[in-house]
Amino acid sequence: FTISVAQLEFWTRKGKPAQPGDLLAVEICNLGPLPGDEWGFTASFDRENGGGFLTDHFPCATKAIWYFEGIYAYSPQIPGVRFPGLTHPGIVGTAPSRELLNIWNEREREVEENGLKHLKLCEVLHSRPLANLPSTKGCHLGKIQKGTPEWEKIANEAARTIPGRENGGNCDIKNLSRGSKVYLPVFIEGANVSTGDMHFSQGDGEIAFCGAIEMSGFLELKCEIIKGGMKEYLTPMGPTLLHVNPIFEIGPVEPRFSEWLVFEGISVDESGRQHFLDASVAYKRAVLNAIDYLSKFGYSKEQMYLLLSCCPCEGRISGIVDSPNAIATFAIPTSIFDQDIRPKTKVPVGPRLVRTPDVLKCTYDGNLPITKNPSATT
Amino acid sequence: FTISVAQLEFWTRKGKPAQPGDLLAVEICNLGPLPGDEWGFTASFDRENGGGFLTDHFPCATKAIWYFEGIYAYSPQIPGVRFPGLTHPGIVGTAPSRELLNIWNEREREVEENGLKHLKLCEVLHSRPLANLPSTKGCHLGKIQKGTPEWEKIANEAARTIPGRENGGNCDIKNLSRGSKVYLPVFIEGANVSTGDMHFSQGDGEIAFCGAIEMSGFLELKCEIIKGGMKEYLTPMGPTLLHVNPIFEIGPVEPRFSEWLVFEGISVDESGRQHFLDASVAYKRAVLNAIDYLSKFGYSKEQMYLLLSCCPCEGRISGIVDSPNAIATFAIPTSIFDQDIRPKTKVPVGPRLVRTPDVLKCTYDGNLPITKNPSATT
Amino acid sequence: FTISVAQLEFWTRKGKPAQPGDLLAVEICNLGPLPGDEWGFTASFDRENGGGFLTDHFPCATKAIWYFEGIYAYSPQIPGVRFPGLTHPGIVGTAPSRELLNIWNEREREVEENGLKHLKLCEVLHSRPLANLPSTKGCHLGKIQKGTPEWEKIANEAARTIPGRENGGNCDIKNLSRGSKVYLPVFIEGANVSTGDMHFSQGDGEIAFCGAIEMSGFLELKCEIIKGGMKEYLTPMGPTLLHVNPIFEIGPVEPRFSEWLVFEGISVDESGRQHFLDASVAYKRAVLNAIDYLSKFGYSKEQMYLLLSCCPCEGRISGIVDSPNAIATFAIPTSIFDQDIRPKTKVPVGPRLVRTPDVLKCTYDGNLPITKNPSATT
Amino acid sequence: FTISVAQLEFWTRKGKPAQPGDLLAVEICNLGPLPGDEWGFTASFDRENGGGFLTDHFPCATKAIWYFEGIYAYSPQIPGVRFPGLTHPGIVGTAPSRELLNIWNEREREVEENGLKHLKLCEVLHSRPLANLPSTKGCHLGKIQKGTPEWEKIANEAARTIPGRENGGNCDIKNLSRGSKVYLPVFIEGANVSTGDMHFSQGDGEIAFCGAIEMSGFLELKCEIIKGGMKEYLTPMGPTLLHVNPIFEIGPVEPRFSEWLVFEGISVDESGRQHFLDASVAYKRAVLNAIDYLSKFGYSKEQMYLLLSCCPCEGRISGIVDSPNAIATFAIPTSIFDQDIRPKTKVPVGPRLVRTPDVLKCTYDGNLPITKNPSATT
Repeated sequence: FTISVAQLEFWTRKGKPAQPGDLLAVEICNLGPLPGDEWGFTASFDRENGGGFLTDHFPCATKAIWYFEGIYAYSPQIPGVRFPGLTHPGIVGTAPSRELLNIWNEREREVEENGLKHLKLCEVLHSRPLANLPSTKGCHLGKIQKGTPEWEKIANEAARTIPGRENGGNCDIKNLSRGSKVYLPVFIEGANVSTGDMHFSQGDGEIAFCGAIEMSGFLELKCEIIKGGMKEYLTPMGPTLLHVNPIFEIGPVEPRFSEWLVFEGISVDESGRQHFLDASVAYKRAVLNAIDYLSKFGYSKEQMYLLLSCCPCEGRISGIVDSPNAIATFAIPTSIFDQDIRPKTKVPVGPRLVRTPDVLKCTYDGNLPITKNPSATT
Repeated sequence: FTISVAQLEFWTRKGKPAQPGDLLAVEICNLGPLPGDEWGFTASFDRENGGGFLTDHFPCATKAIWYFEGIYAYSPQIPGVRFPGLTHPGIVGTAPSRELLNIWNEREREVEENGLKHLKLCEVLHSRPLANLPSTKGCHLGKIQKGTPEWEKIANEAARTIPGRENGGNCDIKNLSRGSKVYLPVFIEGANVSTGDMHFSQGDGEIAFCGAIEMSGFLELKCEIIKGGMKEYLTPMGPTLLHVNPIFEIGPVEPRFSEWLVFEGISVDESGRQHFLDASVAYKRAVLNAIDYLSKFGYSKEQMYLLLSCCPCEGRISGIVDSPNAIATFAIPTSIFDQDIRPKTKVPVGPRLVRTPDVLKCTYDGNLPITKNPSATT
Repeated sequence: FTISVAQLEFWTRKGKPAQPGDLLAVEICNLGPLPGDEWGFTASFDRENGGGFLTDHFPCATKAIWYFEGIYAYSPQIPGVRFPGLTHPGIVGTAPSRELLNIWNEREREVEENGLKHLKLCEVLHSRPLANLPSTKGCHLGKIQKGTPEWEKIANEAARTIPGRENGGNCDIKNLSRGSKVYLPVFIEGANVSTGDMHFSQGDGEIAFCGAIEMSGFLELKCEIIKGGMKEYLTPMGPTLLHVNPIFEIGPVEPRFSEWLVFEGISVDESGRQHFLDASVAYKRAVLNAIDYLSKFGYSKEQMYLLLSCCPCEGRISGIVDSPNAIATFAIPTSIFDQDIRPKTKVPVGPRLVRTPDVLKCTYDGNLPITKNPSATT
Repeated sequence: FTISVAQLEFWTRKGKPAQPGDLLAVEICNLGPLPGDEWGFTASFDRENGGGFLTDHFPCATKAIWYFEGIYAYSPQIPGVRFPGLTHPGIVGTAPSRELLNIWNEREREVEENGLKHLKLCEVLHSRPLANLPSTKGCHLGKIQKGTPEWEKIANEAARTIPGRENGGNCDIKNLSRGSKVYLPVFIEGANVSTGDMHFSQGDGEIAFCGAIEMSGFLELKCEIIKGGMKEYLTPMGPTLLHVNPIFEIGPVEPRFSEWLVFEGISVDESGRQHFLDASVAYKRAVLNAIDYLSKFGYSKEQMYLLLSCCPCEGRISGIVDSPNAIATFAIPTSIFDQDIRPKTKVPVGPRLVRTPDVLKCTYDGNLPITKNPSATT
C-alpha cells in the first residue's frame, strides 16, 4: 500500500539523461525506519472502503501497531509473536510515457466497465473496486495546487499507483531488501524513478491490502543506466514494445528460517465450486486454511489475517498444470510464535490460552520501546 | 505428473485401523532414485495430447533426459546447466470416501461441461482438457483385469489422479523432501495412503506438465495416526465437512542458493487484455518473461521451458490485492548456469554461443554416468 | 573415530592407474545408514583407555545410543533433544608412499618421546597417548593372517589411522556430506583410497573422541583423476613436496538453523594460567562453558559432553591475533532442544525438570523405531 | 583491531544501576558505516610493529582500501572480488573490577616474562609481543590530560584492550550482527559497557591483525539487566568467581553462501615438526594452504593474506581428539570471486591474468563511489 513516494531523475556521468529504451539498474544499498520513528502498522480496510483479499470473510477494518527492536517487530495487538523484518520498498518504478499511460487507462477502464461479467474470486469481491481509474478524488500532486486547471487535468489522466504495471510500481516484492537490484525499463527522458511505500516486513501477497508493516523510512539507492538495455534484456509480452516487466535480482541477505508449516489450497471455492487452474482461488483457500488453523491457538481470525499479511510468509504456486486444480501453498515460519504451533500426535485437551488484545480497534500509544542510555540524556 | 504409486493401509500399534476423522502424520524419512537407475526425464506434451501451462506458446512435444551425479542433475539436451535436486514425491494422498468421490466427480463434470463459457488463461487453452473425468480410456487398475465388469465399474467412477484434491494427491509440492511431514485427512477405514510419482527435482508450478524430473525411485515413510485429528487441526472450507486440505511441515534440509534472478508478471495477457487479480495469468507472464530472457544466452525457448519446469525455481504470488493487477514472480537461482546470466551494465556485443543439443527430439541413450571402480568389477 | 574402512584403486577410463602427483577428485554422491540398521552411538573412553578432549573433567567412559528417524536422530539417554544429521564419512584418504610413511613415523615418534617436555592443554592430558605409533597391539589387517611374519612386518610400520595427515585420512570434517568433493593427493600408483568411519552426525571437534554418531553405513562415490593436479593445485607446506593437504568443496545441502547460542573461550586455562594465542586451550574453555551452561537445564554434564560432541555444533577460531588471548567460539543451534535454552531476562525460580536417563551406562536395546507397514509384512 | 570505543552506563528503569553479579543483555539493533563515510581498510603491520598471525611469512606492512556499495565491499587493491559484509562491532565488553584487573595484569605479565620458554606457533613469532601490558606508551584516555599524575597512574594499571578477556572486549566474533545479543557479566556498579571497533566484515580469526574492514560506524543497542544473572547463567572456569565468559546469541540474518572451498591444516608446522593437538598450528597451516592456492589465480600472496582476513571466511576446529594431529579448516565462499576458483579436472594451460594493483602500498583516494542523484545537488 502506498504512503508516500519520492521522484528522482537519472543522468549518466557525462551529463546525458536516461533515454527511452534504456534500462535503469537500481541497487538497494541501505534502508530502514526513520531514526526516532521505529514503529509501523498493518491494517485492513472496511468492505465498503476498498476491502482486502479476504474482504468477504473479514468485512471490518482492523489495525495492529508494530514496534521495532532492531530487526525484530512485535505488536501489542497480536501477542506471542515476534519476527525479523525483511525491509523493502513496496514501490519502485519509472514514469510511463504518454503512450503507455493511454494503454493503462484503456485496459483498466475496460475491466471496470465490463469486468463484472467475468467476475471470479468466488463472486464475493463485488464490493471491491475492479480498477482504480484516474480521478480527482483523493488526488495528491505534490506542489501543484489542488483545484487549479493544471491539477484537474493531471488528476483526470494520471494513473493511480495502486497496481504494479509495466513500469514496476507497486510490486510489493517482499524480498527486495538490502543488496537487491531492480532493472527498470525507461519510458521517458530522465527515467523519473519513483520509490517509497516503505515496508518493515510483508508476507507474499500482502493479503490485507494495507497489509505490510507500513512505516516511515529512508532508502539509499545506487543507479546505473544500461544504454539500450530494454531491447537487450526485456522481451515485449503483448501488442506493443512497451508491454514489458522489470527484472529483479535478490541478494544473499535474508532471515534464515529452519522450519515451515505449509497450508495448501486448491482451486475449489468456499461454495464447493470447481474453478479451472485458478491460482488466485487456490491461494485464497490456502490462506483461509492457515487463518483457521492458527485461530485454534488462542488468536482471533482477524489477528491472524493481519499477521499473515505482514510476517515473512511465502506464498507459492506449486502446481498450475493438473486440470482442473491449481495448487497454491502458504508457508509460515514456525519460529515466529512463542508457542509450538505444529500439530501434535496427542491432541492437547482443555481450553487454550485466550490472548485478549485484538486488532478490531487499536491506536498508536506513542511510546517507542527503544531503550535510551540514561547517561546520554543530559 | 504421475508415473506409478503404491498404496498402503495404516493401523495403530494396538491393531486398530485409522478411522475417518483421524489425521495421518506421514514423515518422509528417506527417498531417492532406484539404485542402478540414476536418470530421469522432463517432458511436455503435444498441444493435442494434454499440452502444458504454456501449450499456446509451445505446442510441440519436447523431452530432456537428466543424469544424476549424487545430488546433482545434468542433461545433454540442455548443456551448461547443473543443479542439486530437492527430491520429493509428487503424489501423497489418502483414499476418498464414496461421498467425497461423488463431490469430486460432480464438480469436475460441471467445469468440463460449462467451463468453456468462463474460460480464462488468455483464451488460449481451449485444447487442454478442462478436467479429467473417470474413464475406461488409459485406465490402469493393478491386479484387476482389464475388460472385466469390475474393471469397467471402477474405471467409470474412480477419480483420475491428475489434480490434487482434498485428500492431498498430486500436490507437486517441491519442498516435500527428507525430513518433511504431511498431515493427511483420513476418509475411510485404514486411510489407504497412495504415494509415488517420484521427482528428482521440480520448479514451483511444474509448468511443462510432465515437468518435474520424473524418475524411478524409492521412498521410506514413518506414519503416526492422530486420533480425531481432522476436527482438531483441519477446518472445512466448503459446504461439507470433507472440504479440507492437508497440512505440510517442511524440514530444515534444502539446497541453499545465494542469489536469485526474479521475473515478474502482471495479470495482463499477451493480447494486452486486463484481467482482474488473476494470479494464473500473472504467473504465466512471469514465466514467459523468464523463458524469453534466458533464450538470449544461447538456448532455445523450448529448452528453457523444460528447464524452468524442473529446476529449483520459486514461483510466488507477490501481490494479490492491488486491483486490477495480481503480481506473480518467478525466481531462478543464478548458480545453476555455468555462465553469468545477470544483466550487465555494458551490454556484450556479438553473437552468443549457440548451444546446439535440443529438446525437440531426444531419447535415452542407456548410458548411466556413474563411475564404477574398475577394481570392483571382477 | 574409525570403525571400518574400505579400500579402492583408481584408474582412468583408458585403463591407466592414477599416478603419484595426480589429484583424485572424489565426490560424495550418496551415503546413509545401512538399511535395516538405523541406529548409532556416541561414546567417550575411560581416561586410562584413550580418553577424550575433556578427559581431565570427564574421566569415565560414557555412551549414548541414537535412533534414526529419516534425517533425525534422538537418544533415550539424552531426552528432550532431536536433530537432523549432516551425515558424512569421518575418513577419506589415499595411501602414503614409503617416503611419506617414514616421515609420519619419525615425527610422531619424536613427539611421543620428547613431547612431555612441551606438554600443553593445561598439563592435564598426561594420560592421553601423545601419538599412536605402529604396533602389533590391536592391529587388524584384513585378509593377512594375524601372527604371520608378513602381519608382524606390516603391523610394525603401518601408520595408525587415528590422526588425519597429508593424505587426508581421519579428518572428521562434519560438512562433507552429499554433494561435497574431496581433492586428494596421490602418492602411489592407483591412489588406494580408503574411506569409511560413517558418521550420522558430528559436532566440530568431535570432542568425546568416539564422539560422532558412529553407525554402519554405505557410501557412493564418483571419482575423477586430475593428471598432474598436485603440482597445479597443492602447495607443499613443509620440508618436502609431500607436505601437502587435501582440499574440500562443500556443497549446497545442509540443515538450516535459524538461531544459535554461542559460547566463548579465551586461552586462559582452568587454573587461571595465561597461554599464548592457544586456540586449543580457548576451544576447551568454550566447550566447558557450553557444557556447564546446558547442565542447568536438567541434564548431567556427561550427557552434554556427548551431545555437544555429536550434534551439529560449530566450533570456530574467532580471534587468533590479539595477544595473548586466542578466542574460540562454540555455537549450538537452539532448535535441537525441546525447551528454550536461551537466557531469560527474568530468571525462572524453582527446580528444573530432572531428566533421569543418563549416559554413564547404556546398552543398545535392539528395538529399531522405524514403523513398518503391517500390510506389507506378508 | 580497536579504533575507537564509546562507554555507557546501565541503569534499570527504576533508576538502579546494574550491580556486580548481574548479566547485561545487549542486543545489536542496528549498525553500519557512518553516513557519508562509506569506506574502510584492512591492513597488516610490519613484523617489527606488532605483526600478524602470519608475520613470519608476511613481514611487511600492507593495506587495502574497501569501498562500500550498500551491503557489498570491493577494493581497487584486490580486484575481481566483491562480497557482502556481515557488519559487527569487534569490541563489546564491561569494565573489570579492581580484582579482575589485577588477575589480568598478573597472568599476562607472567606470560610476557616467562612465555619464551614455552613458545609455540612454530617458534617464528618471537618478534610478536607476547602480551600488551599497561603502559604509558600510546595510551589514550579520553578527557584525562596526557602527562598528568592521574593519566600516568591510569596508564600504568589499565589493561590494554587488545585481547578479549572475561569481560568480553575485543572478541572479534564476526557473526555478531543485526539481531544478535550479547550476555555480558557485570563486574562493577553501572556495568560501564564499552563498544566500538566497527567492522564492515571480517573472516574468522582476523588473521592480518588489523584484519577486519575497519570503518567509522554507528551502533544502536538495546539493553536489559538480568538481576543476578551471572550466578544463574555463567559458570566460573578458573580459580575465582570472576573467571567467566560472555554468551552470545546469533540471530537469523546472515548472508547465505551456497558453495565453499575448504582448506585443511594439521598440527605439523612448516619445518615438518609434529605438534600435539595444537589447533593454532593447524589453523596456521590451513590459512597458508588457502593463500598459496588462491595465489595461483592471478593474485599476490599479500593480497590473499588481506582478503582472507576480512572476507566472510569460516575458520573451524574440525578435529581436536585424534592424537597427535588437530585438524583445522578454513572455508571460503566461492561466489565472492568473479572467476571460478575451484579445481578443474582439466588443468588450464598458459599464464593466468596478472591482476596488478596490489596491497604493499595503497592510500585512500578520497573518492566515494556512492552515486548521487544530480537533480538533488542544487
